[in-house]
Amino acid sequence: VEADPVPDAVRPTASASESELRAALVRSIARVHARGWCEATAGNFSAVATRDPLRLLVTPSGVDKGGLAPGDFVTVDARGEASSRSAGRPSAEVGLHVALVEEAGAGAVFHTHSPWATLLGERFLAAGGIRLGGYEMLKALAGRTSHDQEHHLPILANTQDLPALAARVRGLVRAEPGLCGFLVAGHGLYAWGGGIDEAARHLEALEFLLGLVGRRARLDPFPVPAPQEIP
Amino acid sequence: VEADPVPDAVRPTASASESELRAALVRSIARVHARGWCEATAGNFSAVATRDPLRLLVTPSGVDKGGLAPGDFVTVDARGEASSRSAGRPSAEVGLHVALVEEAGAGAVFHTHSPWATLLGERFLAAGGIRLGGYEMLKALAGRTSHDQEHHLPILANTQDLPALAARVRGLVRAEPGLCGFLVAGHGLYAWGGGIDEAARHLEALEFLLGLVGRRARLDPFPVPAPQEIP
Amino acid sequence: VEADPVPDAVRPTASASESELRAALVRSIARVHARGWCEATAGNFSAVATRDPLRLLVTPSGVDKGGLAPGDFVTVDARGEASSRSAGRPSAEVGLHVALVEEAGAGAVFHTHSPWATLLGERFLAAGGIRLGGYEMLKALAGRTSHDQEHHLPILANTQDLPALAARVRGLVRAEPGLCGFLVAGHGLYAWGGGIDEAARHLEALEFLLGLVGRRARLDPFPVPAPQEIP
Amino acid sequence: VEADPVPDAVRPTASASESELRAALVRSIARVHARGWCEATAGNFSAVATRDPLRLLVTPSGVDKGGLAPGDFVTVDARGEASSRSAGRPSAEVGLHVALVEEAGAGAVFHTHSPWATLLGERFLAAGGIRLGGYEMLKALAGRTSHDQEHHLPILANTQDLPALAARVRGLVRAEPGLCGFLVAGHGLYAWGGGIDEAARHLEALEFLLGLVGRRARLDPFPVPAPQEIP
Repeated sequence: VEADPVPDAVRPTASASESELRAALVRSIARVHARGWCEATAGNFSAVATRDPLRLLVTPSGVDKGGLAPGDFVTVDARGEASSRSAGRPSAEVGLHVALVEEAGAGAVFHTHSPWATLLGERFLAAGGIRLGGYEMLKALAGRTSHDQEHHLPILANTQDLPALAARVRGLVRAEPGLCGFLVAGHGLYAWGGGIDEAARHLEALEFLLGLVGRRARLDPFPVPAPQEIP
Repeated sequence: VEADPVPDAVRPTASASESELRAALVRSIARVHARGWCEATAGNFSAVATRDPLRLLVTPSGVDKGGLAPGDFVTVDARGEASSRSAGRPSAEVGLHVALVEEAGAGAVFHTHSPWATLLGERFLAAGGIRLGGYEMLKALAGRTSHDQEHHLPILANTQDLPALAARVRGLVRAEPGLCGFLVAGHGLYAWGGGIDEAARHLEALEFLLGLVGRRARLDPFPVPAPQEIP
Repeated sequence: VEADPVPDAVRPTASASESELRAALVRSIARVHARGWCEATAGNFSAVATRDPLRLLVTPSGVDKGGLAPGDFVTVDARGEASSRSAGRPSAEVGLHVALVEEAGAGAVFHTHSPWATLLGERFLAAGGIRLGGYEMLKALAGRTSHDQEHHLPILANTQDLPALAARVRGLVRAEPGLCGFLVAGHGLYAWGGGIDEAARHLEALEFLLGLVGRRARLDPFPVPAPQEIP
Repeated sequence: VEADPVPDAVRPTASASESELRAALVRSIARVHARGWCEATAGNFSAVATRDPLRLLVTPSGVDKGGLAPGDFVTVDARGEASSRSAGRPSAEVGLHVALVEEAGAGAVFHTHSPWATLLGERFLAAGGIRLGGYEMLKALAGRTSHDQEHHLPILANTQDLPALAARVRGLVRAEPGLCGFLVAGHGLYAWGGGIDEAARHLEALEFLLGLVGRRARLDPFPVPAPQEIP
């Protein structure tokens, strides 16, 4: 893993024309869908088109993520409301995307529902999060330069009260600067970055690390044999 | 997950020309096959072309589901008999499809053989079903608006007496309105919806939830550490 | 699963021109490779071009199975020797293919190295085989018409003495008519059929069933809850 | 598995024009990426363009491995320094690649981060390595002609001091001739060969064998039933 070390959790969003941004979102979402992390219309994805005023491209509500086209995204403002020219209805979770753009400086936000994110969020909710440490893959998270730097992945309880959840997300991001993701228990993972590529990198790295935690449960009773007895 | 909440288990089938319907079935089955849920010619799929009189497009018996063409489907009537113009023989399980179209208002029925559906149906048969609760993915099932609304996935014993199985399916659907799927023990999953997209969404959501149940078996002895010891 | 019930383990090979046969082999092997069952040049595949005299198309030795072309197959005779016009060297295991063609009437033989085939062959070698019963997928094996008909998958010990292994295969096929596959412990699976499609169907069905056996090991300590406690 | 038996761990690199070499690297990396072994920009890959003086093509630092183009590779010399014409910055781990080219005669080096390589390296670090024996897939490793020939996969502790790690790699390769791979604990796998095809074959074979070790942990409490009770 060789992410460039950067001082903050996210890098500034590179300028890109909106049509390039839409095309990049389509490519990145297709790859996420192919991994099985947004089955059954699950998941939502956004990228910042302009910051001042905020214009955020977001996936429409209730659509399959396996075959999006560049024109499918809805444009919303800082209140999460769709512009008059948008065809669809924005994802119901758009308020969480706006919260991450405003509080964490995110330029792109990816929300997925993988099996491990769903299960491990449920399993570790009482502990408040999962501390990930000792893996080289941690260096794919912006600002980490060594496998020895522990990363905390917070877990929030799930709720259908999305404004309340967005408020908790704002509080979480203020309390733990340098975050690039969190779990919602029994629900899924939010990951973000300065732009689409970094959001995708954070998503893949966090999913990989969650996969390690899940697989370790199977290995834990596996005794380490003495060298002459391996394996 | 952002399925539109609807009052009933299935939405009315959108009108579509039969050639569009055939093309949509081909695309949807190809995706199911790519996930490994209908290996070795397993599985069968149908969609309603007209309701009155019933004309149902169904996959032919014994064919590989990895390379279907729009012309491959057999048209059957309400007795499950192929029209004279159909080339192939309909799936032997066509009677279950007709039962679901008539009793549950299904516009499309997908029957798959995934490993988890096969194994968990076998494992939980004595309990009569699996209660799924607490997961955001439940909202992908029509009519569910919260992760807290429990969903019951019934399990029927397997049999080669298909008319008897179809009769049990009719009874099940009448007894539990709002169903969108059931398991046949050691056999697989039936999922349906108002149209092809909804049937596919229900299939993916139920398979995802079964995958959680299966993976949890591996996590269950996994002790939740105190926060300072995570992971 | 809706394989046509047939009285014998294999159906007669449909006549096909050799160029069609080569194209069908390429397509079928590509699909097997995509499933990860012949990594690192592992596996070998054959199909009968003519029976009298025997001309068998077989994959060459030591090649990657991810990008075969129709011209890559080697033609061998009943002694497993390549015709003078063949470019490559036939697979070292060609003698087992000839044995299955001659003793079992196979028209196509697929040999793969999946993780479950490798591990379960090792694990159950002492028992001589695995009895598969109770699964609908058994009906994908030629001649089975019910999930209740048990299927025996024999396991042979691995050896580098291929003529000796071929002789044991001949004995096995004579002793257990109706076989369509066997395991070699720590090595992989042989599956065959009357033609390429049936060999592929048997391969997929046996791999699916082995996957169930492997996954059940994880579920076995999973207690079945009383109905009111599910899951 | 039918790798040609060769006396040494690696075969001499076939001559190939640099543009063919770049195209072959692109194809091989795409396949590795599709398997999920280099998520989130993880992994690095190299191939020898000329040996005297050494000109090594290597993936640039910090890029996604899912869509490389032939022009993306950086050319470095024996000190790991990029030629003036190279656009990007070479991978930070390029010193390990040079060490393997010089000490092990590698013509191509593939470094990946799969879940099993990461976890099993961590799990068995105290034992110094994993002894792999009894599997036919071992014959995909150059120089092995039988499943009975044990293969040792060494494990090094992870560190961010890459010159120190490169020195340990040189010592390891001198001490254990015939190696074609090693693990870095909690980090990933290095595999190499005389050329790109052999490096890819060694990578796939070692990943397959690690997958067996990981899956066996799940099977180990699985009791072998008496023959009449199988499964």
